[in-house]
Amino acid sequence: MVRIGIVGATGYSGQELVRYLLRHPHVQISYLASRRLEKPVSFSKMFPEWSGKVHLQCRPFKIQDAIRYCDVIFLALPHAVAMSLTPAFVKAGKYVIDLSGDYRLKSASGFAKAYQMRHADPKGLANAVYGLTELYREQIRKTKVVANPGCYSTASILAAAPLVKRRIVEPAGLIIDAKSGVTGAGKSLKEELLFTEMNEELRAYKPNDHQHMPEIDQALRQWGGRSLRCAFVPHLVPMNRGIFATVYLRLTRRVNEKQMQRWYEEFYKGSGFVRVLPAPSLPKTGRVAYTNDCEIAVRAAQGGRLAIVMATIDNLGKGAAGQAVQNMNVMMGFDEEAGLQ
Amino acid sequence: MVRIGIVGATGYSGQELVRYLLRHPHVQISYLASRRLEKPVSFSKMFPEWSGKVHLQCRPFKIQDAIRYCDVIFLALPHAVAMSLTPAFVKAGKYVIDLSGDYRLKSASGFAKAYQMRHADPKGLANAVYGLTELYREQIRKTKVVANPGCYSTASILAAAPLVKRRIVEPAGLIIDAKSGVTGAGKSLKEELLFTEMNEELRAYKPNDHQHMPEIDQALRQWGGRSLRCAFVPHLVPMNRGIFATVYLRLTRRVNEKQMQRWYEEFYKGSGFVRVLPAPSLPKTGRVAYTNDCEIAVRAAQGGRLAIVMATIDNLGKGAAGQAVQNMNVMMGFDEEAGLQ
Amino acid sequence: MVRIGIVGATGYSGQELVRYLLRHPHVQISYLASRRLEKPVSFSKMFPEWSGKVHLQCRPFKIQDAIRYCDVIFLALPHAVAMSLTPAFVKAGKYVIDLSGDYRLKSASGFAKAYQMRHADPKGLANAVYGLTELYREQIRKTKVVANPGCYSTASILAAAPLVKRRIVEPAGLIIDAKSGVTGAGKSLKEELLFTEMNEELRAYKPNDHQHMPEIDQALRQWGGRSLRCAFVPHLVPMNRGIFATVYLRLTRRVNEKQMQRWYEEFYKGSGFVRVLPAPSLPKTGRVAYTNDCEIAVRAAQGGRLAIVMATIDNLGKGAAGQAVQNMNVMMGFDEEAGLQ
Amino acid sequence: MVRIGIVGATGYSGQELVRYLLRHPHVQISYLASRRLEKPVSFSKMFPEWSGKVHLQCRPFKIQDAIRYCDVIFLALPHAVAMSLTPAFVKAGKYVIDLSGDYRLKSASGFAKAYQMRHADPKGLANAVYGLTELYREQIRKTKVVANPGCYSTASILAAAPLVKRRIVEPAGLIIDAKSGVTGAGKSLKEELLFTEMNEELRAYKPNDHQHMPEIDQALRQWGGRSLRCAFVPHLVPMNRGIFATVYLRLTRRVNEKQMQRWYEEFYKGSGFVRVLPAPSLPKTGRVAYTNDCEIAVRAAQGGRLAIVMATIDNLGKGAAGQAVQNMNVMMGFDEEAGLQ
Repeated sequence: MVRIGIVGATGYSGQELVRYLLRHPHVQISYLASRRLEKPVSFSKMFPEWSGKVHLQCRPFKIQDAIRYCDVIFLALPHAVAMSLTPAFVKAGKYVIDLSGDYRLKSASGFAKAYQMRHADPKGLANAVYGLTELYREQIRKTKVVANPGCYSTASILAAAPLVKRRIVEPAGLIIDAKSGVTGAGKSLKEELLFTEMNEELRAYKPNDHQHMPEIDQALRQWGGRSLRCAFVPHLVPMNRGIFATVYLRLTRRVNEKQMQRWYEEFYKGSGFVRVLPAPSLPKTGRVAYTNDCEIAVRAAQGGRLAIVMATIDNLGKGAAGQAVQNMNVMMGFDEEAGLQ
Repeated sequence: MVRIGIVGATGYSGQELVRYLLRHPHVQISYLASRRLEKPVSFSKMFPEWSGKVHLQCRPFKIQDAIRYCDVIFLALPHAVAMSLTPAFVKAGKYVIDLSGDYRLKSASGFAKAYQMRHADPKGLANAVYGLTELYREQIRKTKVVANPGCYSTASILAAAPLVKRRIVEPAGLIIDAKSGVTGAGKSLKEELLFTEMNEELRAYKPNDHQHMPEIDQALRQWGGRSLRCAFVPHLVPMNRGIFATVYLRLTRRVNEKQMQRWYEEFYKGSGFVRVLPAPSLPKTGRVAYTNDCEIAVRAAQGGRLAIVMATIDNLGKGAAGQAVQNMNVMMGFDEEAGLQ
Repeated sequence: MVRIGIVGATGYSGQELVRYLLRHPHVQISYLASRRLEKPVSFSKMFPEWSGKVHLQCRPFKIQDAIRYCDVIFLALPHAVAMSLTPAFVKAGKYVIDLSGDYRLKSASGFAKAYQMRHADPKGLANAVYGLTELYREQIRKTKVVANPGCYSTASILAAAPLVKRRIVEPAGLIIDAKSGVTGAGKSLKEELLFTEMNEELRAYKPNDHQHMPEIDQALRQWGGRSLRCAFVPHLVPMNRGIFATVYLRLTRRVNEKQMQRWYEEFYKGSGFVRVLPAPSLPKTGRVAYTNDCEIAVRAAQGGRLAIVMATIDNLGKGAAGQAVQNMNVMMGFDEEAGLQ
Repeated sequence: MVRIGIVGATGYSGQELVRYLLRHPHVQISYLASRRLEKPVSFSKMFPEWSGKVHLQCRPFKIQDAIRYCDVIFLALPHAVAMSLTPAFVKAGKYVIDLSGDYRLKSASGFAKAYQMRHADPKGLANAVYGLTELYREQIRKTKVVANPGCYSTASILAAAPLVKRRIVEPAGLIIDAKSGVTGAGKSLKEELLFTEMNEELRAYKPNDHQHMPEIDQALRQWGGRSLRCAFVPHLVPMNRGIFATVYLRLTRRVNEKQMQRWYEEFYKGSGFVRVLPAPSLPKTGRVAYTNDCEIAVRAAQGGRLAIVMATIDNLGKGAAGQAVQNMNVMMGFDEEAGLQ
C-alpha cells in the first residue's frame, strides 16, 4: 500500500481527499495534518462522520513527519505555502500534488504578477507538471510534482481545448462566463460568505481579474500554439458545489455543430471522466456533484461563427480533490479511475 | 382614483402587481380575475397574506367585467392569450399593459417565428409600445397599449443600450450570458422545476434559442441603427428572485473605462430606477430584490476593445410587475416612481 | 414629524428598521449610527439600495448626537450595550426602544443568570415594559422605555398565551420546538454561519439553554398566574427569514379543537397583525416574510389533552424591527399599523 | 454474485439504491424497471451520470422478468403497489425488500385506517418483518420479506427506543417534532413542491395525522410492552436531504443525563451506523447526508423528568435505500456494512 499524507486535512478539499482516498484500493492514509492545530487531535472527534472509518490523529504540520510517514503528499493549503515546502519533499524523493496555485504557472514573473508576491521556489516551476489530466497525461506519468489546476481553469480548459487545438479560434475571441458554488471560496471567515449574505444572492467578482486567468491562458497557448486573450468573469451562486462554465469562442471559419460534436467526442475518447453529451442534452451541476466527472455540450451559433461550449464539474471533485487523486493514479501507475467511481 | 384590473392575479407577476398597486397613491384595485377559477373566491382566503388588505373577490375572467370595472387592465397571462383580448379593450377605450410576449415584436412574422403560432391581432402590433420605460418614455406617454418587456430583455437591453447607441459595437459582437432566479419560470408544474430538481443545481436552457432574443434584437437595432447578431444563453440558478445579466460587447474601437462609466451615467441621468455603480462596486441581485431598481456596472477588458457590462434586476420587479406599474405611471401622467418606492 | 435615531443601523435589524421607517407617515429618520465606524460615511454609499431614498450619513455613535437629533431612539445592538446608554436617554426625556435582551427581564438576578453578567442599570428594569404589543399594549402606551422581545419569544408567547391565560396548561406541560432562518443569528463571523456550513444543513443549538427562555417563562407566568416550566429547543434552518414555532401544551382537561379556535380568535380580536388561520390552513414562513404579521393555527391531539399550536413570524419583522415600530406607534399614539402595511 | 432487481428505479429511492448497490461487493444489478416506461430505455441515457457504470436497460415492469432475472427484489414504489406483487415473488422464492408502507403494519385493519384502503395481501403481513435493522436484526435474518421503515419512523424510533424499552416513558408523554428535506416527498408534481414554493419556506403538514405514526406506535408498543400515545408533527424544510427528529419524552422518574447517555451507548453498541454523540456535540443533517448513518444526542431537562433526544439521518440513506441495503445484507448473511461505507 502506498502511504498518503494530506496537509490541510480540515478544509473542504482536504475532507474531500479523505473521502476519495478511503475508498482507494491501493493506498492508505497514514498522515493527516493541519497548520491550525497546536496538538494532535483525533480526526474522528473533530469530524464525527469519520468515526469508525478514520482512526488517525490530525497533527500539527511538521515537515519531518510528512517525510517520515508518507510516499505521496497532498498539499491542500492556501496559496504561498506549498512553494516553501515542496523543495524539501522533492529532495526526500516524495511525490507531491499541490492543490494551490503555487506551481501552476511556468514563469516566476507570471506568478509574481498573478499572486502579487515573489515565488519562493522558481527553479521548482520547471519540474512541476500542470495536472489537467486529460491534457497532460504523459507528462504527469513522469513527474513527481503535480500542480493541480484551479477549479475554474479545469472546467474552462476542458471546454475550450478541442477547438483551440484546431487553431480556429480568433485571437481575442474567447469569453468565459463561469458560475461557481460557494465551497469554491473555501472556509474563509468573510462577511460576504455568510449564509445570509450569499443565500438568494448572485454576484460577479473580480471580473477579468481572477488569478485563474493566467493558467487558462498558459494552457490554451500551449494547445493552440499562440496567445489567446480571454475574458473571464466568475460568479458566485447560492449552492454548495459545482462549476458551470459557459465558454464563447469566436471562430475564424464557419463550423457545423455536428462536426464540433465529433471533434469533442474524439478529443475525449479514452477519457472516462469527461462526458460529451449528445444534443439536446445540456450539462447540469447536480449530476456531477460528488464525482470526478465533467459534462460538456457544444452548440454552434451565429451561422457557425460562434461556438458555445458548456461544461460542468464539481469544484471539489474534478476541480480539486478528485482530479488530485486522478493525477496520483497516473503518477503511480494505478488505474486512472481507481478510487474515483 | 383610477380603477385597476389584474387578469392573472394568482400567478407570481399578478401577486407582485397587487403588492405594488396596494401602495399606490392614485389607483384602486377594483377587479381581480383568474382564468382558472370557476366561481368567485375571496382573494384573502386564497392568499391569507392579503387578509385585511384586499377585500375583493377573485373572479373567473370575463371580458365584460374587466371593461365594466376598470380603467387600466394589467394582463399577467401566459403567451397567446392577451392578443385575443386586447382588441376589445382598445375598442372600449381602456389602457392595457400586457406582461406577456404577445405585443412585444413589431412584425407578425417575427412573432410567428418566435412563438410558433400566428398572431391573432397583427394590426394591434403597430399601436403597442415596447415598455422599456427608460428607452421609450415618450412613446409610452402617448399609447394606450404597452407591451411590457421580458425579464431577460429588460436587464440585457438596459446593459447594452448606452454602448449600442454610440454605434461602436461590432455587428456580431454581442454576447449575453444571463442568470435567473426560478420565479422567472412561473408556477408551471414541470418536474425540472421541483425544489429537489432545482436546489443545488445550475443549468443552462434554450442556449441561443430563447423567445426573448428577438425583442432584444429589435430594441438594439432601433437604438443602434443596424442589426446586431446577439448570442444569448439563459441559466437557472437556485434562488427565487433576480436576474444577473453579464453582457460582453466587442467594440470597433478602444474605449476607456472611465469614459464608458460617464456614458452610462449620462444615459441614465433622470432615470431614478437605474443605478450606475461607481467602481469597484458590482451589482448584486439581493440588493434589487423586491424593488423596481436596476444596478449596472461597466468594465473595460482586452485593452478597451471589449466592454463587460453587468446588470441586475428583480425579475418580478423591474422585470415584470414593477416595470408594468412604472409604465402605467407614465401612461397616466403620474409621478414615474409612484407606488414603487 | 417625530425625529428618529437608529443606533446599530448597519445590522440586519437596523436595516429593517430603515425599511419600515422610511415608509412611515409620521416620522423622519434623523440620525443613523454605528459603533463600528470611525468617521461618518454616506449611508447610501455603504448600502447602494438606499440611493435616492436616504440622504443621511451614518455616524460613529455618540450619545450626545443621539440626544440632540432624536425624539425616539431605536437601539439595535448586541446584548450588554443598551443598558449602559439607556439611563442617559431616559434622563434626557427620550423614548427608547431596545431590541436587545438588556431590559426584557424584570429581575437583575434573572438577567445575571441568563446573560452571565451583572446588569448595569438594575433600577431601569422596573420602568421598562416588555414590548410584546398584543399582550402589553396598555403599559406600552405609558412607558418611555420598551424592551422589544426576542424573535423566538414573540412567536412562542403569541402561540401559548391564549391557552396559558385560561390556566389549563399543566405546570411542566409546555414544549416549544422552534425553527429559525439564519438572519436570526445576525451578521457574526462564525464558521458555522458560513453559507457552505449552513446550506443543506439543519441543526439544533442550545437545547433547553437559550437566553430567550427566561423571558418566555416570565411572560407566561404573568399571564397564567403561576410558573410553567417550559422546554425549548431552537433549530437553525437554511433560509434567510422566518420563525416557525411548534408549541405543544399538555392540558389539565380535554379541550375541543373548535373551542380552542374560538379562544384564539377572541384573544387576538382587534390585533390586526395576528392571523388565526381557519382549519385546515397551516402557517407558512414565506407568507409572513417582510411583514409584521404572525400566523397561528391550533390543533387538538390525544383526545383533546394536548394542544398543538403553530406560529410563524418574520424574525426581522414581528420578531424585531416590525414589532419595534409597532411599539413606537403605540407609545407615540400613532395608528398601530402606521408604516407597517 | 446475488442478482438484484430494482422496481421503481427512476425515483429518488431507486436512484439511491443504484448508487449503493453498484459499490456492493457481493451483488450485481441485473434488472431495472419502471412502471412509467412503455419500452426499454438505456438507463445511462435517461441518467447520464451512470454512463460507463450501468450498462442495463430500464424496462417496463413485468413480474415475470423480475422473477427470471433476480434473486432479490427491491420495490421502490408508491404505496399500494407492492402488496399486489409480493405474493407472486414469495411464491417464486425470491427475497423482497419493500420500501413502501404496504407491509409495515401488522394488522390489516390498521393498514386500512392509515392508508384508507383495503390491504390486498393481509396474510402476507404476518410474514413480513419490519426492517428497522438495529431493532429487528434477528427476525430479518430469517425472513424473505422485509418492510423497510418510513424515513420519519426510522429517525423517531431510533431516538425513542432505548428509553421506551426501559418502561419509564409516560403513556401520553411522547412528542416527536420532525423536520425533513424535500426529497422525502418524492418527485410528485405538486405546486407546493415547486422550487419557488418551497425555497425560503418552512411549513408543517399533516400535524398528528401522518401515515408514519401507526408504524412508530407499533414499534414502540413492542419495545415498551404497552401502548404509547405519541404526538407527531412533520415539517418540510428547504433542503434536499436529511431528517432531524427532535423527540421529547416525559419520564415517570428522574433520570440523569449521563445515565441516559450510557443507556444509549449500550443500546447501540455493535450497531455501526448509529453514533451516539458525546455532549456537547449535537446531530447535524449535513454530516449524515449520502450515508446510512444516524446521529443521536440525548439531553435531560426539567430536572430529569423530560428527555430530549435528537436524531438525524439521510431520508434517502438510513431512511430508505441505505437501510434497505443494510436489511439485504442481514437477510443474505453478508457483512452488515457491505456496500454502505
